[in-house]
Amino acid sequence: MLSFKNKLQKSIQDRNSNLCVGIDIDKNHFLPDVSLQELKDHSFKVVESTREFAAAYKPNLAFFEEWGPEGFVWLEELIKEIGNEHIIIADAKRGDIGNSAKHYANAFFNHFHCDAITVNPYMGADTIEPFCYNPEKGAYVLCVTSNPSASKIQGNSFKNVIDLTNNTNQNDNIGLVVGATKMEQMEEVRRLSKLPFLIPGIGAQGGDLENTIKINEEFLDLTLINISRSIIFSDDIFGAAKGFLEKMRGCIER
Amino acid sequence: MLSFKNKLQKSIQDRNSNLCVGIDIDKNHFLPDVSLQELKDHSFKVVESTREFAAAYKPNLAFFEEWGPEGFVWLEELIKEIGNEHIIIADAKRGDIGNSAKHYANAFFNHFHCDAITVNPYMGADTIEPFCYNPEKGAYVLCVTSNPSASKIQGNSFKNVIDLTNNTNQNDNIGLVVGATKMEQMEEVRRLSKLPFLIPGIGAQGGDLENTIKINEEFLDLTLINISRSIIFSDDIFGAAKGFLEKMRGCIER
Repeated sequence: MLSFKNKLQKSIQDRNSNLCVGIDIDKNHFLPDVSLQELKDHSFKVVESTREFAAAYKPNLAFFEEWGPEGFVWLEELIKEIGNEHIIIADAKRGDIGNSAKHYANAFFNHFHCDAITVNPYMGADTIEPFCYNPEKGAYVLCVTSNPSASKIQGNSFKNVIDLTNNTNQNDNIGLVVGATKMEQMEEVRRLSKLPFLIPGIGAQGGDLENTIKINEEFLDLTLINISRSIIFSDDIFGAAKGFLEKMRGCIER
Repeated sequence: MLSFKNKLQKSIQDRNSNLCVGIDIDKNHFLPDVSLQELKDHSFKVVESTREFAAAYKPNLAFFEEWGPEGFVWLEELIKEIGNEHIIIADAKRGDIGNSAKHYANAFFNHFHCDAITVNPYMGADTIEPFCYNPEKGAYVLCVTSNPSASKIQGNSFKNVIDLTNNTNQNDNIGLVVGATKMEQMEEVRRLSKLPFLIPGIGAQGGDLENTIKINEEFLDLTLINISRSIIFSDDIFGAAKGFLEKMRGCIER
């Protein structure tokens, strides 16, 4: 089987695309009496409409968990629908230690068959290592996130996260989450780390695509740029994904 | 309905107990062919045997999620079994922003009917606030955790977490997770914060019960001390919980 890194590289290369589609099916975006089946149908439509443009999919666990067991059934079905030709990242932001982290890894890698998971580093190396034992599976560690209040904690500690991930990357399967709303910090992280980035913040959050591509130009074979709302809630999902990908390619060619 | 803080206080007072029982039903602790039903039975036995000693229960989500949808059914049944006379804390360590955090809050407070959740502060205030809108529900924010590698990130930032939680506690429903393996840091956190503590690290992890009680003596009406493995995997669960509670009361009286 391919290592996580090779699968990621192949998925990006095969479609000439760095697009990761974030599957955040927020029920509040629909009518108040929306059924779980309707949300499920919408999530399947997103996959169907973006399959040729996306290198990766990133289902956000919050929107599945609020439905309890049925939400987990939905997640299982969605992952089956996506299949094995794309990278699937569980956007779970789990962050627990040792034994608990091992069981979370078991949940997302072995039960749900995801390729990777997002991990919160606040508890240190103990929380990252259990997600990295298997080179076929990856862990994207939160480093600099795209939300306004993040710097209160991360301002002091994102460099320690870079250190930590550089030191625990023995299996070459760790990446970093680096938001596109803070270009100076992204440049700094890129200087200090050669790990693959998963980049949120473009699209609805207004991040800077052109500079993001420029900062990462030597690493584009392993870079994922996530778009959620502006694709999945577009009236024309196919067109939005296609349009975004063209814009992305345009920035790369310049 | 009682506020979270009042329910917590009442639960501690009614049983003269600060004990929180951590329900971490690790399948690896059982025979390799253990069934989900056997784990479920064990978790029910834990609740039945400790009901008169525990002020709170803290199910750890990792051990439910690895079973997928059936694990969530188990969690629903366990929470129903515990009932409404104890504080139930979802040890989920969720840490996502704004809208995602709102949906996590919906999952744990409205779907699973927990009283509180553990929250990871790495992404800043955006990740804490959505868990605090309802005064009947609480959020325990990770501050200083009990694991060895935690200081790499927390060493720089736990004081910012204290600031952050002091500033976002408008509904008087935020607590802090402060491990009992680092007494100096616990003293420092206690000096800077009047929030209720949830304290892991006593028991199997070897934390210092006597000093923990001493440091928190003015706050014992709102303090929870968590024990997991040394109660739930004891051959005599009832005796272990009773014994621990007697030890705890002994420390308080001294």
